[in-house]
Amino acid sequence: MVKAGIIGATGYAGGELVRILLGHKDVEIKWYGSRSYIDKRYADVYRNMFELVEDVCRDDNLKELAEQVDVIFTATPQGFLASVLDEEILSKVKVIDLSADYRIKDVAVYESWYGIAHKSPQFIKEAVYGLCEVNREQVKGARLVANPGCYPTCSVLSVYPLIKEGMIKPETLIIDAKSGTSGAGRGAKTDNLYCEVNENIKAYGVAVHRHTPEIEEQLSYAAKETVVLNFTPHLVPMNRGILVTAYANLQEILQPDGSYALPSKEQLRSAYEKYYGKEKFVRLLPEGVCPETKWVEGSNYVDVNVVLDARTGRVIMLGAMDNLVKGAAGQAVQNMNLMFGLPEEEGLELVPMFP
Amino acid sequence: MVKAGIIGATGYAGGELVRILLGHKDVEIKWYGSRSYIDKRYADVYRNMFELVEDVCRDDNLKELAEQVDVIFTATPQGFLASVLDEEILSKVKVIDLSADYRIKDVAVYESWYGIAHKSPQFIKEAVYGLCEVNREQVKGARLVANPGCYPTCSVLSVYPLIKEGMIKPETLIIDAKSGTSGAGRGAKTDNLYCEVNENIKAYGVAVHRHTPEIEEQLSYAAKETVVLNFTPHLVPMNRGILVTAYANLQEILQPDGSYALPSKEQLRSAYEKYYGKEKFVRLLPEGVCPETKWVEGSNYVDVNVVLDARTGRVIMLGAMDNLVKGAAGQAVQNMNLMFGLPEEEGLELVPMFP
Amino acid sequence: MVKAGIIGATGYAGGELVRILLGHKDVEIKWYGSRSYIDKRYADVYRNMFELVEDVCRDDNLKELAEQVDVIFTATPQGFLASVLDEEILSKVKVIDLSADYRIKDVAVYESWYGIAHKSPQFIKEAVYGLCEVNREQVKGARLVANPGCYPTCSVLSVYPLIKEGMIKPETLIIDAKSGTSGAGRGAKTDNLYCEVNENIKAYGVAVHRHTPEIEEQLSYAAKETVVLNFTPHLVPMNRGILVTAYANLQEILQPDGSYALPSKEQLRSAYEKYYGKEKFVRLLPEGVCPETKWVEGSNYVDVNVVLDARTGRVIMLGAMDNLVKGAAGQAVQNMNLMFGLPEEEGLELVPMFP
Amino acid sequence: MVKAGIIGATGYAGGELVRILLGHKDVEIKWYGSRSYIDKRYADVYRNMFELVEDVCRDDNLKELAEQVDVIFTATPQGFLASVLDEEILSKVKVIDLSADYRIKDVAVYESWYGIAHKSPQFIKEAVYGLCEVNREQVKGARLVANPGCYPTCSVLSVYPLIKEGMIKPETLIIDAKSGTSGAGRGAKTDNLYCEVNENIKAYGVAVHRHTPEIEEQLSYAAKETVVLNFTPHLVPMNRGILVTAYANLQEILQPDGSYALPSKEQLRSAYEKYYGKEKFVRLLPEGVCPETKWVEGSNYVDVNVVLDARTGRVIMLGAMDNLVKGAAGQAVQNMNLMFGLPEEEGLELVPMFP
Repeated sequence: MVKAGIIGATGYAGGELVRILLGHKDVEIKWYGSRSYIDKRYADVYRNMFELVEDVCRDDNLKELAEQVDVIFTATPQGFLASVLDEEILSKVKVIDLSADYRIKDVAVYESWYGIAHKSPQFIKEAVYGLCEVNREQVKGARLVANPGCYPTCSVLSVYPLIKEGMIKPETLIIDAKSGTSGAGRGAKTDNLYCEVNENIKAYGVAVHRHTPEIEEQLSYAAKETVVLNFTPHLVPMNRGILVTAYANLQEILQPDGSYALPSKEQLRSAYEKYYGKEKFVRLLPEGVCPETKWVEGSNYVDVNVVLDARTGRVIMLGAMDNLVKGAAGQAVQNMNLMFGLPEEEGLELVPMFP
Repeated sequence: MVKAGIIGATGYAGGELVRILLGHKDVEIKWYGSRSYIDKRYADVYRNMFELVEDVCRDDNLKELAEQVDVIFTATPQGFLASVLDEEILSKVKVIDLSADYRIKDVAVYESWYGIAHKSPQFIKEAVYGLCEVNREQVKGARLVANPGCYPTCSVLSVYPLIKEGMIKPETLIIDAKSGTSGAGRGAKTDNLYCEVNENIKAYGVAVHRHTPEIEEQLSYAAKETVVLNFTPHLVPMNRGILVTAYANLQEILQPDGSYALPSKEQLRSAYEKYYGKEKFVRLLPEGVCPETKWVEGSNYVDVNVVLDARTGRVIMLGAMDNLVKGAAGQAVQNMNLMFGLPEEEGLELVPMFP
Repeated sequence: MVKAGIIGATGYAGGELVRILLGHKDVEIKWYGSRSYIDKRYADVYRNMFELVEDVCRDDNLKELAEQVDVIFTATPQGFLASVLDEEILSKVKVIDLSADYRIKDVAVYESWYGIAHKSPQFIKEAVYGLCEVNREQVKGARLVANPGCYPTCSVLSVYPLIKEGMIKPETLIIDAKSGTSGAGRGAKTDNLYCEVNENIKAYGVAVHRHTPEIEEQLSYAAKETVVLNFTPHLVPMNRGILVTAYANLQEILQPDGSYALPSKEQLRSAYEKYYGKEKFVRLLPEGVCPETKWVEGSNYVDVNVVLDARTGRVIMLGAMDNLVKGAAGQAVQNMNLMFGLPEEEGLELVPMFP
Repeated sequence: MVKAGIIGATGYAGGELVRILLGHKDVEIKWYGSRSYIDKRYADVYRNMFELVEDVCRDDNLKELAEQVDVIFTATPQGFLASVLDEEILSKVKVIDLSADYRIKDVAVYESWYGIAHKSPQFIKEAVYGLCEVNREQVKGARLVANPGCYPTCSVLSVYPLIKEGMIKPETLIIDAKSGTSGAGRGAKTDNLYCEVNENIKAYGVAVHRHTPEIEEQLSYAAKETVVLNFTPHLVPMNRGILVTAYANLQEILQPDGSYALPSKEQLRSAYEKYYGKEKFVRLLPEGVCPETKWVEGSNYVDVNVVLDARTGRVIMLGAMDNLVKGAAGQAVQNMNLMFGLPEEEGLELVPMFP
């Protein structure tokens, strides 16, 4: 039985971790951390947990927690983990960080986009970027996993096969993403009130959103060159779900007959099958079927597809997932499973809920 | 392994049965019946089931189905099962009917409210009304279970303890219910279009809704007298959930000191604890906490509570549940578990999803 | 040209006042008061007003305002107006108060339900309860109008004809109301976040909501006896709209033949026609048609209807309106029109928006 | 008084025409055409019009209608108007067509994208594309106006200044658009049911949507070269609103000092000011403010803005409008005003409704 502690258990991602871990047969939650609700019963904050969770919320004490559990999930504001993590903690416990603190390898990039100083850059190199489908083997041996952001998970997985195979021109890549409102967190802000979000759609963080460098870094590894792209997030009036619509110009590839030509529709699909054919949690939809966030709600799936537009010479890459599951808590549990040698899908065989 | 067949697998309740049964370790779905989609892959109708269900939809053939499975779920229009059920089928297979065909014992009442002739009244007496918390023992031995309607499940469970204990005057009972739109089914009707339902609330079927006699019958058993009440359903712009707000005048009860007096707040709560204290799927919320449909979404729970209004001498009884789970598919599986001697909660330990 | 000032112009009711007054040909807004946004451009708070309103927000200074305008609208928290109003102000300017400060004639009732001391009870008697359809003549001569609450407006108008005509038993009256989320205001509270409200319905303030005594007082005037009733509000995932579903037992009335009997369906409808036949803003729907909030969105209409349930001897009274228009800003403008001798419908001929 | 007839008055665009024209002081609606509801009272189809419209729906008889009115609005399926229009009708009455029949000048392109034969290509040349801000003068003299599609209106107006001024490279243009569900019409289709649309976002018509050639044609006129672009529409769970997010690479322009360089942020904004500075219905938002559909709901405004991304050398062009107003009925009325010499904004000074 893996003993787990959660720091930030009363945010939406933290709550989703609780939901998933309660159904995980090899894990026991030992610590519900929540600075905002210390000593309050967890089930009084999230009434869905009534009669399911009896614990009270506790303060954030990583040192103490490291003595009691095998794994710590941190679903905390940017900068928190970096300010408290030390070698002693990491020597005792595995850490899966749902914040951005260790996702970006270049600390200057992190500090520039996030506007804060990084307090423990010495762990950045060690941290494994926990996109399981790409970094599975490294995750298995990690002490510290940087759980990917919601937008980066969906963006990278939607684009990865084509950029990896050199089928698109990296410099033409544009990612237009749409997210449900749980991605904005549970903070009480006017902008996130029901009446402000409902019946409304808007772009935000245009050209400056913090997930941009994370996406660029991961795609640069795949492309084996520096990728600079446009990423535009939008806020959609729904609770859960991220949809990515990505555009790029096709690039000629070496064909079987020795010539160079743009990839065919079949070659595009083959690229996705090559990388995802054996992946449980990435589903390549049948040709012509567009991913919809509702089809993956509550599950750890990412549904992807690709459309070739011969008129423009571009490809449209589409991906849909649940931002709180594969985009946060589900992927964190997937990482935990890998780190503890459990079956990767344990606790994650959640059937999407419709409607 | 229980082999199950579903007739009406492509309606919303049918789809929810599939979702739940896929996670039930003792059941295998052998037949996805859907008259509207014969020979079409089930996962092409419900894309959430992509890579999870490989079967194609099949026609409604109860005779053939009875040879192949142990239990048949019928999530079909009113009158369908009554028109095809016979002794031969019932001698081979257990049947759990999610339609209203066998819920009402008085065939004249059924025919009058539903406006159709009952084709097999001979099975009405045998059918057990599958409200597990009330009729658990009878369900265990049943061949034919009439799975309760969504509104009746929530209404009866919200009111049951007080009417059973004689704490309210049955003739004063008023049930004001609110339902998400999945309760209206998946038929393509203008009234159920997104733009017609969204940003709107309305009452419908005022004084004539078909669930009225079902609620009245069940509460009459509890009251040991004929209950006639007002039931008003409302359509709410959300996918899932039913909320019941029920009103009744308090009735004097025998007090410990031998006098008769109106029940106290504590006595009201005690009545709920008496009937639900050991029930897994009915949760009596702490005093002062109102049930909310979101707290039970995706789960088999019914959250209930009671408020005493000393000013008016009335009690307000509140209940919330997911209409597709406890109000349909979840309760059907709960009944199946009872009928097959499985643990009652098997496959139903679904943690409510929030947000 | 009537010069108007608004205190609390950046709340939802204040914003709606701006929307309506901008389309009113005889009014000019001279003062956009907002304590939270002093010196900020109004159109930077409400971007819908971009290029329509050039003013900046100003502090709440009633004395100064009274010198500059003809009418002040106060869309402020409970207790604010009572704490600053004085005879000097009232001698210079008319005041229409959208808060509850002067709605309830018995100051003890106000203080008990609102939990605050009333700072200027001397104006309570003078204040006219601005339910135009009921108190039209008194409004015309008023200096101070207490604009009715949203729930009371819809509740009273739905029930008024039958209680006025003695057709229902006041002691049996139960009002079950459902409101969109704009009624909860624009304050940044976790409970009102999109993800908490969306896909959810709940009752709140059960048996203790502050609008209860206001409804009771107004219906008591109509009934000519003290009315004590149950009022239960619910929060619905939509921006605008209130739906009232009210229940009462019928009462025998004197019939043309001299006997006493329960009123017929026709007599019930006649009562509504008697009071609303000539009212522009109250629409008695055709028999059998249920009011829906969407049909009145953005307009000053209240749609009402009545259903007789012969089985139970009860009547169900239904009403729908836009809580921000007829339930707040629209009615305030209707009162203003009456107070200034303008056509009552001026600026209020807003066609409901659908979908 | 302009006498108007509407063919297709019971679709969402037709309903919006009624809403707007009821508030237009110089227009009288004489004919509510609706093939689906012949002889039914219009207010029985759209209850918001109860007591506002007394007429019954009538069949589609253009010949008869041409005798009775001054202008006909056709909000009809593709191909309808082309199949019935003739010179006799056009000689008697002005026609504003909300369908696509006369929007595309190349009949082969129309027939290829729409998959139907054009029945009256002889009127295509004469028809004026009714994007008022671009073709104002031509509209004034037109007998036949092709009212632009919803996506094209928002797309073209968002991009127009930069493409007209040569500031972007046309071949790099990508338009990612998001629409509320009223754009899908009022037909009873499973895909448009509340439960299918709610809590969901999807792309559709990827690379094949019919509005693509219309956008390309209009932008080609502005660019003075053939524009081929990607257009991807998405369905968003809200009733109204279109948001366009358009991407393009900047193009060097002649600078004041005689050199060629990429346009600066100020030059980009100046281009928008040049074309929209005097336009009432296009609002260039302050720098850094993203358009949101909610800010224009119910109004004829298009809110636009532009963001320069120096990192990628691209510009992001944003536009938001109400698809039923500026994207359909509002623009049709704006065209009518121009055609009849009325003030362009008459009946269209609708203040956006928030929330």
